[in-house]
Amino acid sequence: MPLASAEIIAVGSELLGSSRVDTNSLYITDKLAALGIELRVKSVVGDDRGDLAAVLRQALARADVIVLTGGLGPTDDDLTRDVVSEVLARPMTVDEAIAGKIRARFARRGLDMPEVNRRQAQVPAGALVLDNPNGTAPGLFIDHDGKTVVLLPGPPREMQPMFDLVCRTQLAVRAGAERVYRASLFITGLGESHVEQKAQPIYARWREAMPPVSTTILAAMGQVELHLSVRDADERRALSTLDAVRGELLQALGEHVYSTDGRGMEEIVGELLKARGLTIAAAESCTGGLLMSRLTDVAGSSAYVRAGVVAYDNADKTALLGVPADLIAAHGAVSEAVAIAMAEGVRQRTGADVGVGITGIAGPGGGTKDKPVGTVVIAAIVPRQPAYVRTFQFIGARTQVKFQSTQAALNRVRRLLE
Amino acid sequence: MPLASAEIIAVGSELLGSSRVDTNSLYITDKLAALGIELRVKSVVGDDRGDLAAVLRQALARADVIVLTGGLGPTDDDLTRDVVSEVLARPMTVDEAIAGKIRARFARRGLDMPEVNRRQAQVPAGALVLDNPNGTAPGLFIDHDGKTVVLLPGPPREMQPMFDLVCRTQLAVRAGAERVYRASLFITGLGESHVEQKAQPIYARWREAMPPVSTTILAAMGQVELHLSVRDADERRALSTLDAVRGELLQALGEHVYSTDGRGMEEIVGELLKARGLTIAAAESCTGGLLMSRLTDVAGSSAYVRAGVVAYDNADKTALLGVPADLIAAHGAVSEAVAIAMAEGVRQRTGADVGVGITGIAGPGGGTKDKPVGTVVIAAIVPRQPAYVRTFQFIGARTQVKFQSTQAALNRVRRLLE
Repeated sequence: MPLASAEIIAVGSELLGSSRVDTNSLYITDKLAALGIELRVKSVVGDDRGDLAAVLRQALARADVIVLTGGLGPTDDDLTRDVVSEVLARPMTVDEAIAGKIRARFARRGLDMPEVNRRQAQVPAGALVLDNPNGTAPGLFIDHDGKTVVLLPGPPREMQPMFDLVCRTQLAVRAGAERVYRASLFITGLGESHVEQKAQPIYARWREAMPPVSTTILAAMGQVELHLSVRDADERRALSTLDAVRGELLQALGEHVYSTDGRGMEEIVGELLKARGLTIAAAESCTGGLLMSRLTDVAGSSAYVRAGVVAYDNADKTALLGVPADLIAAHGAVSEAVAIAMAEGVRQRTGADVGVGITGIAGPGGGTKDKPVGTVVIAAIVPRQPAYVRTFQFIGARTQVKFQSTQAALNRVRRLLE
Repeated sequence: MPLASAEIIAVGSELLGSSRVDTNSLYITDKLAALGIELRVKSVVGDDRGDLAAVLRQALARADVIVLTGGLGPTDDDLTRDVVSEVLARPMTVDEAIAGKIRARFARRGLDMPEVNRRQAQVPAGALVLDNPNGTAPGLFIDHDGKTVVLLPGPPREMQPMFDLVCRTQLAVRAGAERVYRASLFITGLGESHVEQKAQPIYARWREAMPPVSTTILAAMGQVELHLSVRDADERRALSTLDAVRGELLQALGEHVYSTDGRGMEEIVGELLKARGLTIAAAESCTGGLLMSRLTDVAGSSAYVRAGVVAYDNADKTALLGVPADLIAAHGAVSEAVAIAMAEGVRQRTGADVGVGITGIAGPGGGTKDKPVGTVVIAAIVPRQPAYVRTFQFIGARTQVKFQSTQAALNRVRRLLE
C-alpha cells in the first residue's frame, strides 16, 4: 500500500505559548503534498511525555506517515526520541558514530562536547539515522508496521534539507503514483477583493475541469498570492493544465503579477538588474535600510547592489546625499522633491545605474493632518527614462509600513526595467 | 474542581494547507493563560467527522477546557456542531430564536435566509448559545461532566469578542484562584548547550520549590531564550519567586543576558542610547542594511538613529565612508583595520556618537581558505572608550549570517554602553 495520509506533530512547550507558531508544518505539508500524501491532522504538544505518547498513538492509528519535529535537542526537555522509542517499543542504543560527529562539530569550533549532547546519539532499534549537516541533532526514519515515522529537528534550517532528502529518497519510494503539482502567482499593487473579482470567474471554471484545479487566495503583507494545485498521475497533463490556468490569470491580472515561480520581489528585481548589467543604490529614510537588506538577502547580489544610505536625520540627507537643505526646508523631508533628490544623490555619489529614494512617516508618531502616518514618497530613477515619483498612503503598524514601502519601491524598479 | 488545563482544536481543511496557519489559537492561549488555564495540546483537523471525533475524544480525556474554532458555518463541510453533539451524546434541537436572528441578519441586507443556514440554529441539548454580533454563526458553551467545551466561529473578528465575553463570565467563574506568572531571559553570545549547562542546576532546584518554577529553554536565531513560569494563587509569592530565580540565572549567565523583560535587542540598545543621550550610525557591508533596519523597527528610534551607509562595493567604502583604498588593498575588505575605519568613517561623516562597522562574507559564495563564508568583522566605537573590534565565525545560510552579525554588533554596543 502506498503512503497516502500524514500527520504532523510539533513538539515543544514553547510552541504552545502565544508568541510562536509552528511554521515547519507548512514546509512539510508542501513536500508531502508533492508526493500525493495528504495531511489529515496536525498537532502541537508540549514537553510532556504522556501527552506526546497519546497524540503519537492516535496518529499511528490514523495516518500512514507521522512526522515529528522538535524535541531532539540535548536537554531533559527534549523527549521526542524517548517517547517514540517507548510507544513503538523499540529500545534505545547509543550510536557511537553519531556521538563522534557531534564531538567533531564542537571541536571545529574549538569546544569540547558537553556531556548532555550524548543524548542526541541515542537511536531506537531499527531506525535509520538522518545526517544533520547543520546542527547536532540527527533525524531518525523508522518503518514500523507499514507506517513511517520521521523525527526531524525543530530549527528550520536543520529540518528542511533533511526532510528534502527523505522526500527524494525513502518517501518517494513509498508514495503512490499521483503527485500534486503547484503553481503560484504573486500580485502586488491590488487588494485581495480586487484580485478575487478578476480571478474568480477563471478559477471557478477550472475547478470543474479534468483534472480539477484547486485555488487558494491569500493576502500577505504587501502582496496577494494565488496558489494553484492539480493532483494527477499524469505529469504532462497536470503541468499543461497549470500552464493554461496561469496564462488566463496573467491575462486578467496583467502587470500586477510580479512572480509566477515563487520567487520573491527582491529576487525578481535582482534578476532583472543582472540581466541588464545594471547596478542599484538606495537612499532610505523611513524604511531604515530594509530595502537594501532585502536586496542583499539574495545570494550573488553583490554583482548588482552598489551601496545604500540610510539618512534618518535631515542633516544627513544633505551631508550624505547632497539633498539641498533649502529643498527640505521648502517642501518638507517627506515630499516628492526630496525623494527625487535622494534618488539622484545616491546615484551620483555611488555611480550606480539605478537610484531609489524613499522618505515617509512609518509611525506610530510623526504624522500630521496633511501627511498622516503611512504617507510614503517613493522615487526611482533608471537610465534613459524620466524619473518616477509617487506618494503612497499605507495602512498598518510601523514594520508593515516599512515593508509595504520597500515592496512598492522594488515593484516600481521592476516595472521600469521590464 | 477549577478548570486548569485546556486544549484547542481548529477545524477546517483550509488550515491544513501550506499557505495558512491557525492564529486564533494564539489569541485564545493568551486569554486562557491569564485565567491560569494552561494549554496542553493544540490541533488542526480537516473537515472529517471521524478525525474530529477522535481528536475531541482524546482532548476530553486530557484537558478541562476544550475550545474548538471553525466549522460552524452553514455548509456540509461545517461539522463541528454535529460532531460535538455526537461525541457528548447531546442530541440537537433547532433553536428558533437563533433561526430568527439569522433570518433578521439576512433581512437587514434585503436577503432571504438560505435554507442551509438553518443548520446554524441547531443546538446540542444543554448548550448555552453565545451571541455573534459580527456574523451568522452563534457560538456554544457546554458544561459536560466537569469539563467545559466551547465552540467558536473561525473568523477572528467574530471569534475574539465572543471569547472575551466567555473569559470574563463563564470561564472566570470556573477557573481557580491560581494564575500563571511568567518571566523570560534572552541570552546572546552563548550556545544552547552552554546556557543549559550553566542554568540547569538552578532551574532543576527551583522545579522542586514551592511554588515550583517551570523552565523552557529555546534556541532562536542569534539568541537563546529562557522562559520561566510559576502557577500560584498568591501573586506576591509568585512574583518574588520569579524574581529570585531570575536573579540566580542573571548571576550565572552574567553579561550574556541582554533582556529580562521580553524586549528585543534593538529595543534594549535603543533604550540605552536614549538614556545616555547618544546617537548611532552604522557602516554595513555584508549585513546590507539589516542593522539599521532593526534599529529603526523600534517606534521613536528617530530620536537616536542618525544615519547608515551600506557600502557593498569597495569603491563605495572609500567614496561614502572615507576608508582609504590602500588600507583595503593592504588588509582586504574583510579585516579588522577596515571594520574600524568604517565605524570611524560613518561616525565622522554623520556626527553620530556611536559608530558601528560590519564587514564580512555572508555567503554562499565569496569565501576563501583564510576567510571562509561566515567570517564577519565587527567594530564598535563609543565615546571615551577604546575602539572595539573582533572577528567572528558564524554558521548558517546567508540571512542567518546577516542576522547573527547584527545581533553580535548590537550586543557589543549594549555592553559598551552599560
